[in-house]
Amino acid sequence: NIIQTWTRIESDNPTSVLRLPSESELLNYHTKQLTGRDDPPKMASSTVSFIIIIITTVLLSSLSSQLSDLFPSNNPPPFLGKHSHPIKQPNHHQLYRYETRYFSQPLDHFSFLDLPRFRQRYLINTEHWVGPSRSGPIFLYCGNEGDIEWFAVNTGFVWDIAPRFGAMILFPEHRYYGDSMPFGSKEEAYRNATTLSYLTAEQALADFAVLITDLKKNLSAEGCPVVLFGGSYGGMLAAWMRLKYPHIAVGALASSAPILQFEDIVPPETFYNIVSNSFKRESSSCFDTIKNSWNALRSEGQKEDGLKQLSKTFHLCRELTSVQGLSDWLDSAYSYLAMVNYPYPSNFLMPLPGHPIREVCKKIDGSPAGSSILERIFNGVSVYYNYTGEVDCFQLDDDPHGMDGWNWQACTEMVMPMSSDQNTSMFPAYDWDYSAFREGCQRDFQVTPRPRWITTEFGGHDIEHVLKFFGSNIIFSNGLLDPWSGGSVLKNISETIIALITKEGAHHIDLRASSTEDPDWLVEQRANEIKLIQGWIDNYRKKMKATFEI
Amino acid sequence: NIIQTWTRIESDNPTSVLRLPSESELLNYHTKQLTGRDDPPKMASSTVSFIIIIITTVLLSSLSSQLSDLFPSNNPPPFLGKHSHPIKQPNHHQLYRYETRYFSQPLDHFSFLDLPRFRQRYLINTEHWVGPSRSGPIFLYCGNEGDIEWFAVNTGFVWDIAPRFGAMILFPEHRYYGDSMPFGSKEEAYRNATTLSYLTAEQALADFAVLITDLKKNLSAEGCPVVLFGGSYGGMLAAWMRLKYPHIAVGALASSAPILQFEDIVPPETFYNIVSNSFKRESSSCFDTIKNSWNALRSEGQKEDGLKQLSKTFHLCRELTSVQGLSDWLDSAYSYLAMVNYPYPSNFLMPLPGHPIREVCKKIDGSPAGSSILERIFNGVSVYYNYTGEVDCFQLDDDPHGMDGWNWQACTEMVMPMSSDQNTSMFPAYDWDYSAFREGCQRDFQVTPRPRWITTEFGGHDIEHVLKFFGSNIIFSNGLLDPWSGGSVLKNISETIIALITKEGAHHIDLRASSTEDPDWLVEQRANEIKLIQGWIDNYRKKMKATFEI
Repeated sequence: NIIQTWTRIESDNPTSVLRLPSESELLNYHTKQLTGRDDPPKMASSTVSFIIIIITTVLLSSLSSQLSDLFPSNNPPPFLGKHSHPIKQPNHHQLYRYETRYFSQPLDHFSFLDLPRFRQRYLINTEHWVGPSRSGPIFLYCGNEGDIEWFAVNTGFVWDIAPRFGAMILFPEHRYYGDSMPFGSKEEAYRNATTLSYLTAEQALADFAVLITDLKKNLSAEGCPVVLFGGSYGGMLAAWMRLKYPHIAVGALASSAPILQFEDIVPPETFYNIVSNSFKRESSSCFDTIKNSWNALRSEGQKEDGLKQLSKTFHLCRELTSVQGLSDWLDSAYSYLAMVNYPYPSNFLMPLPGHPIREVCKKIDGSPAGSSILERIFNGVSVYYNYTGEVDCFQLDDDPHGMDGWNWQACTEMVMPMSSDQNTSMFPAYDWDYSAFREGCQRDFQVTPRPRWITTEFGGHDIEHVLKFFGSNIIFSNGLLDPWSGGSVLKNISETIIALITKEGAHHIDLRASSTEDPDWLVEQRANEIKLIQGWIDNYRKKMKATFEI
Repeated sequence: NIIQTWTRIESDNPTSVLRLPSESELLNYHTKQLTGRDDPPKMASSTVSFIIIIITTVLLSSLSSQLSDLFPSNNPPPFLGKHSHPIKQPNHHQLYRYETRYFSQPLDHFSFLDLPRFRQRYLINTEHWVGPSRSGPIFLYCGNEGDIEWFAVNTGFVWDIAPRFGAMILFPEHRYYGDSMPFGSKEEAYRNATTLSYLTAEQALADFAVLITDLKKNLSAEGCPVVLFGGSYGGMLAAWMRLKYPHIAVGALASSAPILQFEDIVPPETFYNIVSNSFKRESSSCFDTIKNSWNALRSEGQKEDGLKQLSKTFHLCRELTSVQGLSDWLDSAYSYLAMVNYPYPSNFLMPLPGHPIREVCKKIDGSPAGSSILERIFNGVSVYYNYTGEVDCFQLDDDPHGMDGWNWQACTEMVMPMSSDQNTSMFPAYDWDYSAFREGCQRDFQVTPRPRWITTEFGGHDIEHVLKFFGSNIIFSNGLLDPWSGGSVLKNISETIIALITKEGAHHIDLRASSTEDPDWLVEQRANEIKLIQGWIDNYRKKMKATFEI
């Protein structure tokens, strides 16, 4: 079970490992909750449930180094998803029609080892496409770490705008996720470090490049401009693809893409500071209560019968064996709340009210007089873990660490240093410890990370100059409430490298289907995106026309 | 013996395989000729012989499809080098000082297989470098398929201009060549398709990127601009590196880099047409004689005692067993002559007069009245194979095909289709036959080529637009006499993507050290290059200064 294997790499070291999306896990879990079976629903043939896309990130939060002396734990913290009890939503609207196809890909684009090829799944819709004769655009969503059908149904923006552009829609799946498994099955693909070794961003980009090149050739559509889309890690792929394969695509919409969350490009405290500020802006007493709660937790845990009492206070189904699990459970809630801090009610893994942090703080601040810090905290996180009030007790099971795709990626290329600042963060203080991180990866995956590889391959340092003088046609869209926004590009770099910022936005909400609930700033953001994309295509067509006229 | 293993991939099929540089082989051979031993001379410690750098390409020319019926051959054609008898040149001047270092590289940058790292050799000279405090530039020559010491001593341009730029000089070696062997030795690295599988251009570029990133970090020289240099395949690497790693280098001088010699981007007849025109421009009767010689050769070979007679006419040491070997021997001479058709005497593998094609044609046209076509041909190619008159008889040994680096690259990524046009080429007519080529690679290397991969990864189609709107700071320098020039970029694409063309230039002569023999156009070409490079560096410094002032 994937969900049960979600763990922290650093299980017995006080190392903070922050991970980008593990949408595959979220999806699988979510799908299971919705359908009662392990397979994702066949969206093309059945009504699609209304899944609110909000998070593309799984955060495994830190235990402070200060606390670590007191609360050492050999148990990996539980996966957030385990604690969620999403209610089923009615399966209303949004049926996106597509054909599912498979494309044979080399397992390694960059060597000539005699390896078995694998089948990459991709979804295609050509019903609005105006075709090669009119240079009909091709909208390509850069599949990230999850089942591509889930991304397809949760990236309504692409479906919404394709008709007006006369565009083909393509959703190629990322290798090692969903139904695009090397070696024939997930079991084989995830068997060990050798079978997993081709799960890298560069290979995924090359997959996209080879697929689209072949597809265009087969359709005699070489002259049709390709526009890239992606959110979170998928947004990083879209931006990198535009930079590395400018001959393949004319532009990229990279939503909530933290391409600078590597090495020392942004301060490692950025993520937790943004989460913390999201609470502080709602209520400084709420922020203070959370910040003070860690010591309260520690003190309580040290008491005789303290764990028993904590288990009671937090309505845990089983008695705690250490405070670690509880601490992780709380960390996760706060970080996810910041990512999904949308202005209207949403339902991803968790059914949540609009402005969920505001609601959490209302509970924390508004607990009855005389409530203890920990009682206030419990009341607060209950908004996240039990908004519907259906949960009787909370499960904090720890499960053995398993081979998960994004875990692997985080332990190889996607090394994103995270710290928690003693002064500005409401989380336990923690300093990024690469050595401990590396040792954890070696122990858990028998692999040594390459923490500097991503910036070597894709750049990152001095990105403004590189993008200004080399790149073009990239939109970096970010909501400032999203803790990942701090690792993205937040200002215009040139006339064609544009940062679209929304103060009240969270994690890649712009990629969702439009709805009547959309606030004005979201409507405006999407309108800007459409205008910019139209500009790329217009310019491309002008250029082509000029060529033909010569 | 490497030289002896130089053969055509298609040994028993009438397939034309044209290959880029096999400088390693040329070098090894040349070194052996010079020193009587297998190791390249240690340039840092001994006087360097004055080797004229001219060719970076080995051409294995075609046998016409028409002739193939008559002249099927199971013997691979001999390597050009085998026929050369270069005279030793006095070891005058040009002692370039450098330190030899080694850098530990991952064997596969794009997977996380647990593979042994390898030692990449690089040469470094810092004596003129003004250092990080003054943003001293780093001149990096993209090592191509050969021993890096040979490139170092034959790329005098970089050494000539480094002092005025206050530049560091770096010559990293290309993996699988020279002293940069994975698996500890050439024998192990070239053992089979598995060990060779990491010999690709992408891995080589990543080697350069990782090396320079690490080196700059260690020297606190992150702010120092890197300028790339390269000739022939090395020029392709330089241009691709600038495109794929714009954050690593500010510009590239790509000399004689046929980045468009793939798929159908340029007509496959281009190369042989240029060779043919180089003869035609000297003398149309010379062109005609060569063009007619193939039939004469065929007729002669069909006669009783014909092979004996041919062997006598061409002063071969051993009697021919088929006409194939002789045909290849002639093909090679013409193609190499076109590449090294310099305006002054030169000495690479062959000591040659200035304007060597003119001299060849003088011999062909000026043979005594009554000379047969084949006698004229023999007189002509003797200029190439025996300019010094020291050869008594010519060796046309055929050796079994061996595992050579460039052979491997040509059979995997570097698939350059070549045809010979019946009307415009003086060579036997031949149509590119990819299927036969592929079968040959499968048979000889147990590998299947990916003929469309290079353009997928690096672009090529619509290169003008891609470069115009995305690239910057690349010089494509070409001499129009060079048959490879037809596959390069021959016109300015933007203000910073510049084509420097010399009508009378041949294969990357601009990278050679300046000499008193340089014609004005060459002096001017190099001055332009210096000016452009200075512009890149000035702009970079302005940009950096502006950043610091903010």
